[in-house]
Amino acid sequence: MAKKKRKKTGLAPGSLVFTGNQYLDNPLIQAFRYDEQLLEEKEAAGNLFAPRIPEKKYWYDVRGIHDKDLIEQIGTAFGMHPLVMEDILDPEQRPKIEEYEDGIFLILQALTFNQDTCTLETEQVSIYIGTNFIWSFQEKPTDLFSAVRERMRKEDSRIRKRSSDYLAYALMDSVVDHYFLVLDEIELAIANLEAAILEDPNSQVKADVHSLKLQGVWMRKTITPLREAVGQFSRSDHPLIQSETQIYLRDLYDHVIQIMDLNETYRDVISGLYELYQSELGMKMNNIMKTLTIISTIFIPLGFLAGVYGMNFDVMPELRNPNGYMIWWAVVTTLVIGMLFIFRRQKWL
Amino acid sequence: MAKKKRKKTGLAPGSLVFTGNQYLDNPLIQAFRYDEQLLEEKEAAGNLFAPRIPEKKYWYDVRGIHDKDLIEQIGTAFGMHPLVMEDILDPEQRPKIEEYEDGIFLILQALTFNQDTCTLETEQVSIYIGTNFIWSFQEKPTDLFSAVRERMRKEDSRIRKRSSDYLAYALMDSVVDHYFLVLDEIELAIANLEAAILEDPNSQVKADVHSLKLQGVWMRKTITPLREAVGQFSRSDHPLIQSETQIYLRDLYDHVIQIMDLNETYRDVISGLYELYQSELGMKMNNIMKTLTIISTIFIPLGFLAGVYGMNFDVMPELRNPNGYMIWWAVVTTLVIGMLFIFRRQKWL
Amino acid sequence: MAKKKRKKTGLAPGSLVFTGNQYLDNPLIQAFRYDEQLLEEKEAAGNLFAPRIPEKKYWYDVRGIHDKDLIEQIGTAFGMHPLVMEDILDPEQRPKIEEYEDGIFLILQALTFNQDTCTLETEQVSIYIGTNFIWSFQEKPTDLFSAVRERMRKEDSRIRKRSSDYLAYALMDSVVDHYFLVLDEIELAIANLEAAILEDPNSQVKADVHSLKLQGVWMRKTITPLREAVGQFSRSDHPLIQSETQIYLRDLYDHVIQIMDLNETYRDVISGLYELYQSELGMKMNNIMKTLTIISTIFIPLGFLAGVYGMNFDVMPELRNPNGYMIWWAVVTTLVIGMLFIFRRQKWL
Amino acid sequence: MAKKKRKKTGLAPGSLVFTGNQYLDNPLIQAFRYDEQLLEEKEAAGNLFAPRIPEKKYWYDVRGIHDKDLIEQIGTAFGMHPLVMEDILDPEQRPKIEEYEDGIFLILQALTFNQDTCTLETEQVSIYIGTNFIWSFQEKPTDLFSAVRERMRKEDSRIRKRSSDYLAYALMDSVVDHYFLVLDEIELAIANLEAAILEDPNSQVKADVHSLKLQGVWMRKTITPLREAVGQFSRSDHPLIQSETQIYLRDLYDHVIQIMDLNETYRDVISGLYELYQSELGMKMNNIMKTLTIISTIFIPLGFLAGVYGMNFDVMPELRNPNGYMIWWAVVTTLVIGMLFIFRRQKWL
Amino acid sequence: MAKKKRKKTGLAPGSLVFTGNQYLDNPLIQAFRYDEQLLEEKEAAGNLFAPRIPEKKYWYDVRGIHDKDLIEQIGTAFGMHPLVMEDILDPEQRPKIEEYEDGIFLILQALTFNQDTCTLETEQVSIYIGTNFIWSFQEKPTDLFSAVRERMRKEDSRIRKRSSDYLAYALMDSVVDHYFLVLDEIELAIANLEAAILEDPNSQVKADVHSLKLQGVWMRKTITPLREAVGQFSRSDHPLIQSETQIYLRDLYDHVIQIMDLNETYRDVISGLYELYQSELGMKMNNIMKTLTIISTIFIPLGFLAGVYGMNFDVMPELRNPNGYMIWWAVVTTLVIGMLFIFRRQKWL
Repeated sequence: MAKKKRKKTGLAPGSLVFTGNQYLDNPLIQAFRYDEQLLEEKEAAGNLFAPRIPEKKYWYDVRGIHDKDLIEQIGTAFGMHPLVMEDILDPEQRPKIEEYEDGIFLILQALTFNQDTCTLETEQVSIYIGTNFIWSFQEKPTDLFSAVRERMRKEDSRIRKRSSDYLAYALMDSVVDHYFLVLDEIELAIANLEAAILEDPNSQVKADVHSLKLQGVWMRKTITPLREAVGQFSRSDHPLIQSETQIYLRDLYDHVIQIMDLNETYRDVISGLYELYQSELGMKMNNIMKTLTIISTIFIPLGFLAGVYGMNFDVMPELRNPNGYMIWWAVVTTLVIGMLFIFRRQKWL
Repeated sequence: MAKKKRKKTGLAPGSLVFTGNQYLDNPLIQAFRYDEQLLEEKEAAGNLFAPRIPEKKYWYDVRGIHDKDLIEQIGTAFGMHPLVMEDILDPEQRPKIEEYEDGIFLILQALTFNQDTCTLETEQVSIYIGTNFIWSFQEKPTDLFSAVRERMRKEDSRIRKRSSDYLAYALMDSVVDHYFLVLDEIELAIANLEAAILEDPNSQVKADVHSLKLQGVWMRKTITPLREAVGQFSRSDHPLIQSETQIYLRDLYDHVIQIMDLNETYRDVISGLYELYQSELGMKMNNIMKTLTIISTIFIPLGFLAGVYGMNFDVMPELRNPNGYMIWWAVVTTLVIGMLFIFRRQKWL
Repeated sequence: MAKKKRKKTGLAPGSLVFTGNQYLDNPLIQAFRYDEQLLEEKEAAGNLFAPRIPEKKYWYDVRGIHDKDLIEQIGTAFGMHPLVMEDILDPEQRPKIEEYEDGIFLILQALTFNQDTCTLETEQVSIYIGTNFIWSFQEKPTDLFSAVRERMRKEDSRIRKRSSDYLAYALMDSVVDHYFLVLDEIELAIANLEAAILEDPNSQVKADVHSLKLQGVWMRKTITPLREAVGQFSRSDHPLIQSETQIYLRDLYDHVIQIMDLNETYRDVISGLYELYQSELGMKMNNIMKTLTIISTIFIPLGFLAGVYGMNFDVMPELRNPNGYMIWWAVVTTLVIGMLFIFRRQKWL
Repeated sequence: MAKKKRKKTGLAPGSLVFTGNQYLDNPLIQAFRYDEQLLEEKEAAGNLFAPRIPEKKYWYDVRGIHDKDLIEQIGTAFGMHPLVMEDILDPEQRPKIEEYEDGIFLILQALTFNQDTCTLETEQVSIYIGTNFIWSFQEKPTDLFSAVRERMRKEDSRIRKRSSDYLAYALMDSVVDHYFLVLDEIELAIANLEAAILEDPNSQVKADVHSLKLQGVWMRKTITPLREAVGQFSRSDHPLIQSETQIYLRDLYDHVIQIMDLNETYRDVISGLYELYQSELGMKMNNIMKTLTIISTIFIPLGFLAGVYGMNFDVMPELRNPNGYMIWWAVVTTLVIGMLFIFRRQKWL
Repeated sequence: MAKKKRKKTGLAPGSLVFTGNQYLDNPLIQAFRYDEQLLEEKEAAGNLFAPRIPEKKYWYDVRGIHDKDLIEQIGTAFGMHPLVMEDILDPEQRPKIEEYEDGIFLILQALTFNQDTCTLETEQVSIYIGTNFIWSFQEKPTDLFSAVRERMRKEDSRIRKRSSDYLAYALMDSVVDHYFLVLDEIELAIANLEAAILEDPNSQVKADVHSLKLQGVWMRKTITPLREAVGQFSRSDHPLIQSETQIYLRDLYDHVIQIMDLNETYRDVISGLYELYQSELGMKMNNIMKTLTIISTIFIPLGFLAGVYGMNFDVMPELRNPNGYMIWWAVVTTLVIGMLFIFRRQKWL
């Protein structure tokens, strides 16, 4: 994850370099101009930087962040600090919030669970809140905000009625909601693994527990700063945040805390899985050793007894006894029964 | 647990959707109108929303929270915030307290221990405190508040004398009291498991320790936010909370702390059980290996000695010796005695 | 421990019910009336509630707390809050301090180490400090305060010179001193167990380590709230606490911190014991396996060699060789020496 | 690391003694005199202490800190506190910031990853910020600040435009950037080790995991105080720190937090590696034991059966049976098939 | 450690009883009277309590603290609080600082590493700072302060120039410096143990790791309160502490933090040693088991094959075959080669 940083070491801070992977050819830009009555949509166009109408609110959404010239143009036109532009271009940022005089800048990491590789994938989402406008930047082509768009298109949508900070909240909320889906996947995986361990604790199961454990570690790494950022946002007294939005932000904060709790709980549960796996393995080893010991303890002495009467000494009276062979078998049978009795008393059988 | 969230992902916050399981056909509503002199009870009725008499206090208790229209009607009639209604309908909330201008909203999770499955079950309880009225919402049909109801029916009941916040305290107290019962069950289970481990650390015992450990994890997940909520409630200076109630709330807070301590202590004890189980297993393995080693160490060399004199070389002088067989047995016996002596010195016997 | 709570679940808070075990038939009450000049003692009597002389100070000590009527009488006569009375009757309280307008209420848990069962026993001590009087309640018949009584009887006793809060301090101090004795016992047990593990890590040792670990867990459960209570007491600005007493309370607080440190240190040491035990067991297992492997590795191949020449093929030229038997022994001896050489190089011998 | 302290024990604090290793013969001194228009460079020279022109800014960089007389001269000429000089000479300091009336003193530890030994190497960097000048001291001859120098030589460099505190920030930033490179190396090592464990968990792998774990421990030891120092620096209201620099310092602080998070995450991951290694070993042991048990369980009883009919009793009817040998083989084959069947059912095959 | 407390249980607080071990026959008292110009030394004498000259500063150093009458005399003459005297006499105190109106009382624990027993030894040092005088009490006869004394005897000593609080700082600094020596010893022991584990993880190594772990535990127990005490001292605004001393105290505080960090780091490293030891043991066990399994898996089946042709059935056609013996050997050789091939593929060879 930190690997891409290398490209930048040695550059002046604030230098604009894209340090991530490029997921699509050209950035997709979608612009909304809206007020309570009217919503106008248009796909990326040249007039992005045309003067804005003060009574209207604007939402610009960019998918694909590899075009550093575009980011620079946007940033300059909308008065963003150079460090903001640098952060948008670096998809390895921790979730954070930064307040500037005339804007608030938010970085989030959206999580999705890749079913094929059983790993978490992150997508950086940056949101810049200005006076009556919002810029959102998504790293990948999939649209995280389609549900928000749907809601905006409805006549009586609360998003259109309220100011930009509420839209920012709605965007954050839809990112946070994805975490619950990921936790669902993890919960499912835990249940499956627990069953698998109790049935057959093989090598695959161990690798899966290990991998699941790692997901919890990575997830915590993302959630902890998210909690701080959302908490700071909900307590902020920046003029761009209205007090009626704060109650929603506090609710969002509660959700993040809940996600964090669940993740910590799942981490404990996964630790428990690991221990369960270890005991299951120990138990299996125990059973293997018991089998070995029972067989050896019975048959090695018997083998000795057979060996004795396979010796070729000239004088061995037992061999001459016509009932010797019968007596020998009687002794052997008695021994076996005695041993089985002892084993049972030891609870080995 | 988080599974039900899925249904909601993508909806606007504040949208009313029931995301839990439905436990009964129709919500049961019980309404109390009371003052110090008189207590009137009635089952759910249409006149819930009839104007209230200012000198009287009201307690409305709802069992079953799946009817989102009902919740919406109640919420609107009694001036609850949309987020309150949303939380009532979502039985996966963390315990919390939220203060609004003209009301206080509380979420608790009642715990019960299911004897059959040896697992904890939670039931969400929401309490809304308004001026001279309280709404309580229970998720399941069993009545958690029957004892409170009994006490209210008594003439000189403190609940009837005091204002609504005291009733809220009484409801919380009866939820918290159930935690002690759960801890009793856990304590009992610990004692049983410790005995079982020392007697026979088998596979079932291991599964039980694992399961008990999980209960402690889930319980902590519920108690930690409960502590925060009760603590915040007891320190609150909301006008609806009277100062003479606060001493009771502090006492309640002490109980929650005590529950938390006990749970943490039990978690330590259960961890100890797990270690005990591991050592017991190790000790058993040790005994098995000792048995195997003693038998093998004695009989494999003896088997070799028998094998030697079972060889068919033409010239083997010992075989011709008339006392050879006797001498052979003497050697074998000496060897066995010598080995037993060594084993005893090694404390293997 | 929490088991007795069950009896109360469902009752109104502040209801007086005794929830502990009864240790003696009738409560023992001892009353002291004293000032700097004079000390008058009397055993429990009816005139406990006779009007007090304002210039005198009073100490009432009760042993045995099962008589709820007595407690109620006392509480009512001396103006205690209902919750205080409830707490006195419930011997499962966490150590705590509660300040009321005209009194301070303290709960402590005295610890004693039962040599026979190697477990900790707790005894609840409640202290109520009022203006010029103190009530102390001991759960069991043994007198924790005999040393304090002795000191009071001396002419120039500091207790008699100072106000009631100093007496309360002296009582607390004598409870806290018992913790050091318990820690001594634990230290002794640790030293014994360490020696036992290094000598012979058997099953009894394991059970003892487990039990000692539990004692540390329970002890922490008692000390943590004790620290809070003593700390709060030493910082309190309640009018009943005089500033010259506070320096003593701070000293007491230092002692509690020292006890807590020692307990945490011992817990770490006991954890180390457990690990030592595990390694000792592993080492022993290693030795057992080494013995088995050495014996098997030497004699199983030799057994095979003997078996070869015990075969009955018609044509086996070695058997006909008159030196065959000698040569065979030479080969066997060489093999054994070679293997011993290898084992030594592997540090198995 | 603390070893060198010994040389100093017993000396008065503030005594100047060099306690590190000498990495180069003579200290290299590079001086920059600059303002927005002009940059003058010169290598170490005698006129270091010539009077400074107030409108110019100065940066003096020293590589090699073993010359205590030089440090003392510098310190005295530029008004540093004796403790500052002592700290510069002691390359075992924790990262820290100290504010004096007319200067700010910073200690950092630069990290590099030595590929050959797979260990971290630290280099102490001390920075003293005065009015219009900066002194930086590097312990080793390699230049950590070459990139900063490059940027300064550019005409429109932000460093030259701003005051000295921005230069100090740039120096710190280039030290912190090296941490990301180290984390990259660690991430690479983790990936390699995980693959190695799953392929063949041998003795080398174990040593590598152990060594990697240690690096995480040492790294945390360096980062934790670094975080404190940078945090304190970014919040400082010292007159030498300008408010427009603080936004950059906050960004630096974010980077340090990110490094810390990554290190903690990697530590968790490495712990997971260790557990993975343990399970892999356990799994391998299991397989070894299974092989042993299967072979022994099959062939020891068969060996016994062969031994029985190698006995020399006079009367053994089976031996006389012309089909005896065939029947014997039939029995043996049946037994083997039966056992294989059992093993498969136990999932041992 | 807490053992000696027993002697005191039951006494009034503030009672003077010596509870430690006596290390020398008579206390050694050394007195210094000094100002910037002149230093007068004298060994213990009767005129300790002669009136002091207000312009001079005094340092009295006592070695040996068993003489309670002496301590009482000193304490009374120099106005110490009874609790101070009690603490001086009890060598089991936690490091702490206590501020009185006209004095400051400090308790430290000096650490030394006993090379013979590989354990830490503590020596309590108490320092009482009054107006223009200092009393220091050392428990044992070895002089911890010889270096300070040397420095004082120099003409231009900073100690003589400054007020008593600087001398107190110098004494504390020389105690703290000894901790670095102890950490050096621990670091050396870690390096030796790591080498020993990788070479031969025997029983002695395990005991050494265990013992080293304990030293870290005890050390933390001493450092944690030391940190608090030094921190509190460095922030104190007591009139006896001058502001120019505080910068030195802050430096001392940094040293204590550094010691604490190093100790925590070493504790982590020692934990790593333990895990390394466990894996090394596991690895060795693995190798032992592999040897056993290889030998058994090869020779037990071969033994069976030899047994088969040692049977005495009348009809065994193979035995009659003149090439039977050769063919048998061919089969055996093929089997062995095949098995070796399998073992190599399993990486057991």
